[in-house]
Amino acid sequence: MNLAKVVGTIVATQKNPSFAGCKLLICDVCTPDGVLTGSEVVAIDTVGAGENDYVLIVSEGNSSRQAMGKKDAPIDSTVVGIVDRVDTGSSTLVVL
Amino acid sequence: MNLAKVVGTIVATQKNPSFAGCKLLICDVCTPDGVLTGSEVVAIDTVGAGENDYVLIVSEGNSSRQAMGKKDAPIDSTVVGIVDRVDTGSSTLVVL
Amino acid sequence: MNLAKVVGTIVATQKNPSFAGCKLLICDVCTPDGVLTGSEVVAIDTVGAGENDYVLIVSEGNSSRQAMGKKDAPIDSTVVGIVDRVDTGSSTLVVL
Amino acid sequence: MNLAKVVGTIVATQKNPSFAGCKLLICDVCTPDGVLTGSEVVAIDTVGAGENDYVLIVSEGNSSRQAMGKKDAPIDSTVVGIVDRVDTGSSTLVVL
Amino acid sequence: MNLAKVVGTIVATQKNPSFAGCKLLICDVCTPDGVLTGSEVVAIDTVGAGENDYVLIVSEGNSSRQAMGKKDAPIDSTVVGIVDRVDTGSSTLVVL
Repeated sequence: MNLAKVVGTIVATQKNPSFAGCKLLICDVCTPDGVLTGSEVVAIDTVGAGENDYVLIVSEGNSSRQAMGKKDAPIDSTVVGIVDRVDTGSSTLVVL
Repeated sequence: MNLAKVVGTIVATQKNPSFAGCKLLICDVCTPDGVLTGSEVVAIDTVGAGENDYVLIVSEGNSSRQAMGKKDAPIDSTVVGIVDRVDTGSSTLVVL
Repeated sequence: MNLAKVVGTIVATQKNPSFAGCKLLICDVCTPDGVLTGSEVVAIDTVGAGENDYVLIVSEGNSSRQAMGKKDAPIDSTVVGIVDRVDTGSSTLVVL
Repeated sequence: MNLAKVVGTIVATQKNPSFAGCKLLICDVCTPDGVLTGSEVVAIDTVGAGENDYVLIVSEGNSSRQAMGKKDAPIDSTVVGIVDRVDTGSSTLVVL
Repeated sequence: MNLAKVVGTIVATQKNPSFAGCKLLICDVCTPDGVLTGSEVVAIDTVGAGENDYVLIVSEGNSSRQAMGKKDAPIDSTVVGIVDRVDTGSSTLVVL
């Protein structure tokens, strides 16, 4: 999994039918103290995440399909958690 | 998934039989505001995408086979959506 | 697998139900002599690892679900071992 | 999939029995206009590719096993096509 | 697959039970002429490889479990061959 920040959304009208009704979030992978790395993935929301949330992203097909409850969907990245707090020895990132 | 731009096509006569009739697109992964990163993948089209389209790419085998409807094909990257609009806090990329 | 050091923990209240009761560790991939690379992954603990431990991380969905004993969970990274000693021709990293 | 150029071969006498009789090709991932990136993978040939061919490589286990027709083999990268022509807006790479 | 050189070993007492009796090798991915890249993976030996051997590494879960003959083990990287010779147009790496 990766820690990331939701930085945007994507609209795609013409797409695989499995994605109907899915929210597509652009997530920028970040460090434990919240600094964006510029490495972006598009992930499907399964937990009600929105822009500026810090989230956990699973990047693997079977995992993602299971998180979506759609076993036939062509998915490889999914938001599976909204992060409240990140603690390291040197910093605490509290997300309010 | 990754946001990418279709930048070319590939012709391969001698290939695995599963690819017969497939369109092979060269896609360059891009940032949310449409800047190419120079990281290219070859993906199979499943949504009618063409050159200069911004697209969503799934990069995983099972997902890709399901998007193709070919459960035995050796595929790992597939175009699953054509992007109409990308919104971030600081930019909007509208694709006409 | 990767050698990594546990550098922090993550709290996520709103998450996929499969993660209930799981400890989420931030792990920084490191070299054989223990130098952190700054490449971080969030992995689920299955061996009782804690901060500052050097650990082995499996980064793949099916492996990780099996390490967890949760075959339906959306997981892609898991801590599967705590490292006691790393020997190379030029260095020995003993973890006490 | 990735576009790559075959740059060499590997001989390994002591190996997993599944590889008996397989040709192991060293492939260097390249840009659409044929420039090598220095990122190399070892892939199993399934289409009769040889040195200096431009090829398509699938990098995923299930795909690769299916391309090989060996469902139990420990494989993760396979050459699935020989490229004849690459067209982009700005260049055409014709492979004769 | 990747060409790599075995550069060390890891001892981990507290680990997933599937790893009992396994030899854990630190492998540094290398170029076709044997230059180390500094990109290290920890792989399980299945072919009797040892320090300084050039080896082939499979990096994928299902492949690796099959190479191990342990279908439930949380593994993602395995040494599947010991390299005797690498030939490219410009160099030959003979491993004695």
